[in-house]
Amino acid sequence: MTQIERARYGEITSEIKEVAAQEGIQPETIRDLVARGLVVIPANKNHKKLIPRGFGRGLRTKVNANLGTSPIFPEWEKELEKLEVALSCEVDAVMDLSTAGEIRTCRRQIIARSSVPVGTVPVYEAAVRARTQYGAVVEMDADDLFQVIADHAEDGVDFITVHCGVTRQIVEKLKENPRLLGIVSRGGAIMAGWMLHRGEENPLYSQFDRLLEICRTCDVTLSLGDGLRPGCLDDATDRAQIEELIVLGELVRRARDAGIQVMVEGPGHVPLDQIEANVVLQKRLCHDAPFYVLGPLVTDIAPGYDHIAAAIGGAVAAAAGADFLCYVTPSEHLGLPTAEDVREGIIASRIAAHAADLVKKIPRAWEKDRAMAEARRDLNWEKQMELALDPQKSRKIRLDRNPVPQEVCSMCGEFCAIDIVKQYFGNK
Amino acid sequence: MTQIERARYGEITSEIKEVAAQEGIQPETIRDLVARGLVVIPANKNHKKLIPRGFGRGLRTKVNANLGTSPIFPEWEKELEKLEVALSCEVDAVMDLSTAGEIRTCRRQIIARSSVPVGTVPVYEAAVRARTQYGAVVEMDADDLFQVIADHAEDGVDFITVHCGVTRQIVEKLKENPRLLGIVSRGGAIMAGWMLHRGEENPLYSQFDRLLEICRTCDVTLSLGDGLRPGCLDDATDRAQIEELIVLGELVRRARDAGIQVMVEGPGHVPLDQIEANVVLQKRLCHDAPFYVLGPLVTDIAPGYDHIAAAIGGAVAAAAGADFLCYVTPSEHLGLPTAEDVREGIIASRIAAHAADLVKKIPRAWEKDRAMAEARRDLNWEKQMELALDPQKSRKIRLDRNPVPQEVCSMCGEFCAIDIVKQYFGNK
Repeated sequence: MTQIERARYGEITSEIKEVAAQEGIQPETIRDLVARGLVVIPANKNHKKLIPRGFGRGLRTKVNANLGTSPIFPEWEKELEKLEVALSCEVDAVMDLSTAGEIRTCRRQIIARSSVPVGTVPVYEAAVRARTQYGAVVEMDADDLFQVIADHAEDGVDFITVHCGVTRQIVEKLKENPRLLGIVSRGGAIMAGWMLHRGEENPLYSQFDRLLEICRTCDVTLSLGDGLRPGCLDDATDRAQIEELIVLGELVRRARDAGIQVMVEGPGHVPLDQIEANVVLQKRLCHDAPFYVLGPLVTDIAPGYDHIAAAIGGAVAAAAGADFLCYVTPSEHLGLPTAEDVREGIIASRIAAHAADLVKKIPRAWEKDRAMAEARRDLNWEKQMELALDPQKSRKIRLDRNPVPQEVCSMCGEFCAIDIVKQYFGNK
Repeated sequence: MTQIERARYGEITSEIKEVAAQEGIQPETIRDLVARGLVVIPANKNHKKLIPRGFGRGLRTKVNANLGTSPIFPEWEKELEKLEVALSCEVDAVMDLSTAGEIRTCRRQIIARSSVPVGTVPVYEAAVRARTQYGAVVEMDADDLFQVIADHAEDGVDFITVHCGVTRQIVEKLKENPRLLGIVSRGGAIMAGWMLHRGEENPLYSQFDRLLEICRTCDVTLSLGDGLRPGCLDDATDRAQIEELIVLGELVRRARDAGIQVMVEGPGHVPLDQIEANVVLQKRLCHDAPFYVLGPLVTDIAPGYDHIAAAIGGAVAAAAGADFLCYVTPSEHLGLPTAEDVREGIIASRIAAHAADLVKKIPRAWEKDRAMAEARRDLNWEKQMELALDPQKSRKIRLDRNPVPQEVCSMCGEFCAIDIVKQYFGNK
């Protein structure tokens, strides 16, 4: 039986117990949320080192970091270094998006070393194989694609992004009525190109049951990709995006009926005032499935700082109900991230997630901010460093910018407000 | 006559013309907004190098960078370097918050070199003088304080932050009913300490007319400081903060009646879901005076990354109607910023301001994002670099992460979605 089926039978699985302990929530509550599909716990039977995490309603907002090789940087060893950085930054999940070099070795190594759930986008590897074997991505066979998915399941991948909602009808309409930036999802573009070239329906949609069967073998969670997500603000919340979302809602029901856990992916590039509407729409159309958003970026003109544009959008999305944030790094739109970019991206997303958790009244979230405020009131610097999201960077700045040891800091010095208040207010 | 008085007489001043041209708005519209006090154009008659900027309704959201020496870093030359960095990052205003070294030299040098409005917090220098002269800040005389303000006006300061709303009554109530983090505004703490020590009313409140007279001499704009702003999320939107805001609303009316331009400062540390309410409240209680916010920070646990926590809060505040964002740098809560921190802080605030301007439908804001989307569609990298908020950093990452020149980038390489779409969609 799968995780969701066991929850439906009333079982409190070891995964549910673990998540309940992490979140400070009763196991029975988590079990009921898993049974209803409002929380997912991606946990492939073959991912031995996994410490399961929950994603969804009432839980702490989670953060994912994308890793993986690319044609110019095919060395999987570099991606393992980034995995270590990601884990040290307390990431909640990683995705291996490798498209070059020893792809399977990279995936297996990441899974072997990762204590957090690992996701992949199998169509990338299928595209690489097709290019090698047939000379073109669009020559890929449906069977080839399902074989890659089966390989990923067997290797221990906890969740897979599959662009099932990019149907032939939506793509043909989009071709007739183009948007500014077409398709920016790699998986979405591959499936759309494949359909237009062959005149066939997307096999991930037409053979969705086959996908569900593969997921069942090792209990893989589906992450329904948004292949038609907007690639710029001008395309946000448009017809193509919403038509795909409607299809994803239909597939959420089918996955749940088949006993497969499912979440839904979301945009992308969205103006600040459309973000809440996007979350409300996803929750409604997709039957409250956990919502996994990429950013969203609130402007298109911040290359080099897209982690900040994404933190703004991510905080607002999560406060409105998004459950899971995919990080964006400073090198987004420019190149493959470095290990340092991975760190910057994760911390920015964690700030966004935490800001939202304060709004969501997630258990324990407020405790951290209160403890920091107390440490500041007491001018207890060691405690402040401990409580910081990134103690390492805080300590470094504190040391660099305070060459002379003192109780106050080098910004205000003897004019420290807290120090003045201490003197004249008397009570603390 | 002052700026606001001339606007009331129907004059389209050279400052109004300049702002109208910058914003792409009719001069008559700007004039009417200035006359009503909904837009301010801080422009001291003695600030010769100033290119005036407007702050307020319907205008592009502006960004301020704080500069200034501190006891551990008293060299004014360093602050001039930061000014150059700030101007190169297209900052809209700077404040000189110096508290050490040759304070007046620093201020005069900054004003002499700054094409953007310069603000100060005169009570800092008054406190430094009092400490030197009498040995304690609280021994400062009201006359001393007003003398410093007059000096700042004469030197060409365009706007001054004055903590007029920290009244004796509010401070005594706060002493009886303490909040978690007391007072974190330096100016607020100095005035509160002064009142508690001497048992006298805040002279900036009790002698507000004297302040207005000084402002009139060189046409200085008032920025009513929020001395009781929350210093942590737990204190946000509390009684002390709102009581002060009510007083500030009363003083906005008095300043406008006296023909002095006025804006109002706001928090600070505010949970994401209280930000909009804070803006609505300020606009209502302060008669739509331009709102100048510090951050707000949406979490207390992000030292080292407070520019990101502030970008989240700033974007949401500005989208709700805040007009002017004071930057926060990565070294906030840790020490005086470096020149690099100044750059990071300004860019983060500019992202927040621009994300909000897209929501506010500010003229020209959307053009930039559309142009970037077109450059991305066309894989026109040079154009993308030009359109970036920080072309320098974008170029650096692009070069560093793309060792092999190619049309696509090193993230997706031959699997570039845009490239695939070009092939199979045909159109464009």
